[in-house]
Amino acid sequence: MAIVVGYVPTREGRAALRRAADESLLRKSKLIVINSQRGGRDFDGEEAHRFEAELSRIQGQLDEEGLEHEVRQLVRGNEPAEDLIAVAEEEHADFIVIGLRRRTPVGKLILGSNAQRILLDASCPVLAVKAEA
Amino acid sequence: MAIVVGYVPTREGRAALRRAADESLLRKSKLIVINSQRGGRDFDGEEAHRFEAELSRIQGQLDEEGLEHEVRQLVRGNEPAEDLIAVAEEEHADFIVIGLRRRTPVGKLILGSNAQRILLDASCPVLAVKAEA
Repeated sequence: MAIVVGYVPTREGRAALRRAADESLLRKSKLIVINSQRGGRDFDGEEAHRFEAELSRIQGQLDEEGLEHEVRQLVRGNEPAEDLIAVAEEEHADFIVIGLRRRTPVGKLILGSNAQRILLDASCPVLAVKAEA
Repeated sequence: MAIVVGYVPTREGRAALRRAADESLLRKSKLIVINSQRGGRDFDGEEAHRFEAELSRIQGQLDEEGLEHEVRQLVRGNEPAEDLIAVAEEEHADFIVIGLRRRTPVGKLILGSNAQRILLDASCPVLAVKAEA
């Protein structure tokens, strides 16, 4: 059993990572962080830095608990959704954790195509998490 | 802390109910099943019957574990999404569990409006579960 989360250095990505780690600790299951890079996508440097710091904090916590965890770099030219779903299937994941953007009070927001695809196509459950307000 | 699930007498609804109960047992948290009826909607009688049977089996399990659980009938004229989100906020829910239909091999499927709304507007995480294949 494992919990699979995508590596996304944004506020939602950090919230998803934190929640995925909490769920791993609760269930005593392995945490797999997928870094699915297609290249060319720019992330805010500060968020990326915060994400790295959060990731090493969480890895320390999992180490202390003796829980297995790994960061997989996938450069397969796939959409991130495909990579997450494939790994979740290989690992018989308990669930996938994804981050969703919070709707602004006036904002019309629809689900991004990656999120929709993961929600619809993953055979395991998907836990969708927002960044804190 | 509580886990909130909508009462939906379909295969996906039963999968969501079962998963919500498992998560309640794991976390020792209350389970709240929301029956948000607007009337007029027909459910397959057999599925409704199976759902009721599943619900009483689960209630028995939660009773044995001494966990609080309740079925709330809400007839407020709201969309089910609004009711689920409102109860989740009142109860500071740990998460909401929803059932999603599985995409057929040839089927183009988009997320239903209730599911999208819950995913986008709930401030707590949302666990999306499919019916077994």
